[in-house]
Amino acid sequence: MDEFQVIKKFFLPLAAQKENSLDLDDDAAIISIKKKSIVIATDSITEGDHFPRNEKNPTNIAKKLLRVNLSDIASMGAEPFAYTLNLSVPKKLKKKELIIWIKNFAKGLKQDQKKYNVALLGGDTVAIKGNLVMSLTAYGTVNKKVLKRSGARIGEDVYVTGNIGDSGIGYGILLKKFTMLNASLKNFYIKKHKLPDPPVHFAKNIVKYASAATDISDGFLADLNNLITSSKCGAEIMIEKIPFVPQTKKLIDQQKIKIDYLLSCGEDYQLIFTANKKFSKNIFKLAKQYLIKVVKVGKIIKKRKLRILDPQGKELFFSVLGFKHF
Amino acid sequence: MDEFQVIKKFFLPLAAQKENSLDLDDDAAIISIKKKSIVIATDSITEGDHFPRNEKNPTNIAKKLLRVNLSDIASMGAEPFAYTLNLSVPKKLKKKELIIWIKNFAKGLKQDQKKYNVALLGGDTVAIKGNLVMSLTAYGTVNKKVLKRSGARIGEDVYVTGNIGDSGIGYGILLKKFTMLNASLKNFYIKKHKLPDPPVHFAKNIVKYASAATDISDGFLADLNNLITSSKCGAEIMIEKIPFVPQTKKLIDQQKIKIDYLLSCGEDYQLIFTANKKFSKNIFKLAKQYLIKVVKVGKIIKKRKLRILDPQGKELFFSVLGFKHF
Repeated sequence: MDEFQVIKKFFLPLAAQKENSLDLDDDAAIISIKKKSIVIATDSITEGDHFPRNEKNPTNIAKKLLRVNLSDIASMGAEPFAYTLNLSVPKKLKKKELIIWIKNFAKGLKQDQKKYNVALLGGDTVAIKGNLVMSLTAYGTVNKKVLKRSGARIGEDVYVTGNIGDSGIGYGILLKKFTMLNASLKNFYIKKHKLPDPPVHFAKNIVKYASAATDISDGFLADLNNLITSSKCGAEIMIEKIPFVPQTKKLIDQQKIKIDYLLSCGEDYQLIFTANKKFSKNIFKLAKQYLIKVVKVGKIIKKRKLRILDPQGKELFFSVLGFKHF
Repeated sequence: MDEFQVIKKFFLPLAAQKENSLDLDDDAAIISIKKKSIVIATDSITEGDHFPRNEKNPTNIAKKLLRVNLSDIASMGAEPFAYTLNLSVPKKLKKKELIIWIKNFAKGLKQDQKKYNVALLGGDTVAIKGNLVMSLTAYGTVNKKVLKRSGARIGEDVYVTGNIGDSGIGYGILLKKFTMLNASLKNFYIKKHKLPDPPVHFAKNIVKYASAATDISDGFLADLNNLITSSKCGAEIMIEKIPFVPQTKKLIDQQKIKIDYLLSCGEDYQLIFTANKKFSKNIFKLAKQYLIKVVKVGKIIKKRKLRILDPQGKELFFSVLGFKHF
């Protein structure tokens, strides 16, 4: 029984009406009050997984916690406006250290509140002994349309924002993998892991053109697979179109990092979205306006399968779809 | 620097406009969309504090997690309708045990969803190594008035629902205090600790008569003190009016348990509320209708002080106000 089966079996029977819970199938939920809708996303981050154990800089933890949730709000095409916070602080800290810890945590939130135009609604704090687990719930508004995973239609284009795999390489470095990389490369990737940069402002505008979207938290393959499964269709992806930074391309060419890892490591917090071909120009114009890298990586097909093709059109096979939560 | 000072210093600068965040001073926050308001409450519970370490029955954990949040919704006079969940599951469990764990957790939610008429909107799950930390965010609606901590006025009555100290005694028993109690008493109090019973249905109706409210999570004295501080007034409480179950009264009389402990141990998840004298009859009628124990324990006074009086009118002094989160 995998994560999705567990959700379907145990939590779907608990779900609010489909209109609000979206059958627990999307990155967020919706509260509607007379046509106006509020999109709600909640995600936890844990010490040792989403941020390093004994991270010295809680400013980064705060930013990551907020951003992974804003990524979910973005994937619904919503505009974030507020959040609530469930903060854990390390029990082992002395009073004075604790105050400094919280101060720096709040500093991170403050900086990002400005960047993303959101504000704190409330929350609570617990001091805990083990690894820190923090949750945040983000709220966004949509005018009419919400982007769901289930909206993709046959023949549409598949787009990706940003670059794939940076965060996963950073995570691997923290786990003492990829020891062959030099210090400057290591720092580059670790920073990408610690500070995701979801295309929040871009996303609320793409809603005009896109038909479906998801953010990449579990890995490019896994999240795209979720999208096509929800949309009851398939996708054909040209592997040479998948966006990587030049440094990563080099590592792939040198066979220092496997592309399987990059497509399944997750925590990219970029968007995968689909749109009718006719919106291609509008989308690239919008991307330019918001200084967001957007590439077309493939198309939606009828056959319910995720096909990854090499430049010769030959299908490639991947043993791993993405990060499993349990 | 205590918890409130930390919130004021580091988090108040991050708060959304007062209309929504209530300056982080209440049990919940409010999102308004054209007159209709949604009340949002979020609270975490931790293994070893809010539920026993290695609790065998995740059904109870689920219920407690939901109920502590519904208690906050109740304290705002709102009617809960939905929640989002941040679930932690123990990493040490084998796949099969884990499925059973989640199954029983979901069972608890299902039972309480029926009891309280709420439904799941979404959430996420992480598997963690250390002590479990779980968060839940509950959503309620209010029609016009929201009950805030700041609404108490001089001369009003102070009411309490349920009984005080049961949960705290249960917690003490789990920590191997109160070893002198017999098994049946121990079970009674531990159950009260594990399964709080906030007056959810009563609370959404009391909003017509009450002027201010808070739930008791940090302790009777601490939470009442917060209420009068927010309301810029004081309170005079007659100690003999404070409601205890007969078993607890006996323990006090036998000097086996100190009243200081009962008034500060917290996690009662009952309501303290204030109301104009003229509503006294209506309130007791409502209490009868919902089968809720409600007692008048004192009144709001001008002097900004929490005064606890013995039957002779002599002021009693308590060294401890309540549970401190850090």
